[in-house]
Amino acid sequence: MNISRPTLILDKEKAIANIRTMQTKAMNLGLSLRPHFKTHQSLTIGRWFKASGVDQIAVSSVRMAQYFADEWDDITIAFPTNVLELDAINQLASKIRLNLTVYNVEVLHILGAALLHPVSIFLKINIGNNRAGLHPSQQEEIIQFGQVVQSYSQLTFKGVLMHAGHSYSARSQEAILDIHQRCMQQVEWLHRCLDQDFPDLIFSYGDTPTCSVAKAFPGIHELRPGNFVFYDMAQVQIGSCTVDQVAVALASPVVGKQADDQTVILYGGGIHLSKDRITMEDGQRNFGRMVRFTSTGWDVLPPSCYLRSISQEHGVAVLDNEMFKRIEVGDVLGVLPVHSCMTADLMKSYQTDEKEIIQMMK
Amino acid sequence: MNISRPTLILDKEKAIANIRTMQTKAMNLGLSLRPHFKTHQSLTIGRWFKASGVDQIAVSSVRMAQYFADEWDDITIAFPTNVLELDAINQLASKIRLNLTVYNVEVLHILGAALLHPVSIFLKINIGNNRAGLHPSQQEEIIQFGQVVQSYSQLTFKGVLMHAGHSYSARSQEAILDIHQRCMQQVEWLHRCLDQDFPDLIFSYGDTPTCSVAKAFPGIHELRPGNFVFYDMAQVQIGSCTVDQVAVALASPVVGKQADDQTVILYGGGIHLSKDRITMEDGQRNFGRMVRFTSTGWDVLPPSCYLRSISQEHGVAVLDNEMFKRIEVGDVLGVLPVHSCMTADLMKSYQTDEKEIIQMMK
Repeated sequence: MNISRPTLILDKEKAIANIRTMQTKAMNLGLSLRPHFKTHQSLTIGRWFKASGVDQIAVSSVRMAQYFADEWDDITIAFPTNVLELDAINQLASKIRLNLTVYNVEVLHILGAALLHPVSIFLKINIGNNRAGLHPSQQEEIIQFGQVVQSYSQLTFKGVLMHAGHSYSARSQEAILDIHQRCMQQVEWLHRCLDQDFPDLIFSYGDTPTCSVAKAFPGIHELRPGNFVFYDMAQVQIGSCTVDQVAVALASPVVGKQADDQTVILYGGGIHLSKDRITMEDGQRNFGRMVRFTSTGWDVLPPSCYLRSISQEHGVAVLDNEMFKRIEVGDVLGVLPVHSCMTADLMKSYQTDEKEIIQMMK
Repeated sequence: MNISRPTLILDKEKAIANIRTMQTKAMNLGLSLRPHFKTHQSLTIGRWFKASGVDQIAVSSVRMAQYFADEWDDITIAFPTNVLELDAINQLASKIRLNLTVYNVEVLHILGAALLHPVSIFLKINIGNNRAGLHPSQQEEIIQFGQVVQSYSQLTFKGVLMHAGHSYSARSQEAILDIHQRCMQQVEWLHRCLDQDFPDLIFSYGDTPTCSVAKAFPGIHELRPGNFVFYDMAQVQIGSCTVDQVAVALASPVVGKQADDQTVILYGGGIHLSKDRITMEDGQRNFGRMVRFTSTGWDVLPPSCYLRSISQEHGVAVLDNEMFKRIEVGDVLGVLPVHSCMTADLMKSYQTDEKEIIQMMK
């Protein structure tokens, strides 16, 4: 393998298959797909989605919207609107169909007073994740919010935006479906609150676990998952995908061997993979699953071969007997990351199996 | 505060005071200081160390050595030598006094066969951190290692390199000193193993907790801490410093408010701070301490104001009653990071209190 430093290897076929699976599912269910591009942050990879028929996206910052606005004209910033970036928001709104996420009424007043171009507003609803947004039970505030949106001529109340982020605590498909079921009950309740006053709202819902696993999304119009393009070991543990669907691996030079505990030191640490981790059933922390690169991709090593600990540049990988004997200092091992969004953000570029380098937003 | 996106604010006076304190301590103890520059990764900040009398540094990658070699001519790469970067190592060795870290004999053979210019070798000793290196008890392997170094004309056996990284598990100065004490016993044992055959070795020891707290370093010649230039909330918890010594804060726009649990959503998350966290005595995860910026720096808010959770771009900050009332969407709050090295690596530049922008290695 022709690399000398940590390099993020992307299996293009797997990523494209992941995109097609999700797009086909959305189409079959009569839902639109608005994939979240914070995972890959790349115009090139965005084109793979376009080729699959996707024409609208979500991003997580104004900066990311600016980057993608060169090739996409319908963008939702699925992050609470930062009123310190009004100039950039105004500029974007003059160029593309821009959807903003808001849940504090004071933000609506600031936008209403400052925006020169029309934007659409999605109301952020807290559907159980408990990070941000209005609770579905806050019926009065929700209706009032819609009325304030309508009081400003540049603002259109376009929909509600929900993220079932608590699905990340699931550890089986059953657990994901249980969370999803409770979310769908909230969606039904929201329709009862909103449909009379605001009959044309788009109900946007997204998170990779539920979008990967659930078979029905009653009351939902738009799916907004992001991570599924690459998946990762956290998604494998949650039950969203199999390990064979994970499309990125960090190629990491082996820089040391310890015979006493069958570990190798990798040049590949927290500044490459992030410090995200999963906890195994036995309580052991796990920072990634080991793979061995082949001429056509990689072979996933047994679960006993994993990244046990991580520091700024070091990763400590446990290997099994056989692999420990075969691996030498100067070899390159791969790590399937725990959280591919964070790893991609850190690495800033991809190398595909065909040795093509794909750049990301800087 | 004139910022609109997450920005790493550096209190230059605090950083310079931290540098001077450590340099004075090393001088008073008759030790040389070789600060680890992976924390700040900046030529500009490096010059503050030069002004304090520092003339040798440690880094954690060949790339970082290349960056600093423009202004520093004595550099230790305090990371197991990556033999896939021999060309770059050769180039560095032709230009500066280069010290490499090695503990596998096979690496010595590769270096001996490939290097065209002299380099010095530090043997990595595992002094209790259990990440990498030979154990002090492996007397035979240690002596043999030294002999292999001496068998290659370009290689000089210059010293042993130890990192008491297990001091990061300490939660009090007493606990740090206890770990330090055990390390010093190992150092004494190492001297007994090595002094006869290799009388001129430099014993290099470093980690911010022990270097900040311990008063004596018997048998040590060189201190190699890095984090102390900025410190962070993990070091406060360990007992290495006070919260007033922390020299960096992430300025983060407030983008949302939730009255029900007195939290605010910050534009400032894992891609800015890293996911490093500490666990409080009550079991609560903590991703940073909140500060309020002033015209001359920042005021540290009470411990009840902290970052409770973090995702890719979001931080969820708990505030006390008074602060929650005063803070509005569009304000800027600061976060003292849990791990300043990781935060700096992610942010790639600093803004000082005088509005100067300091760039880092890209």
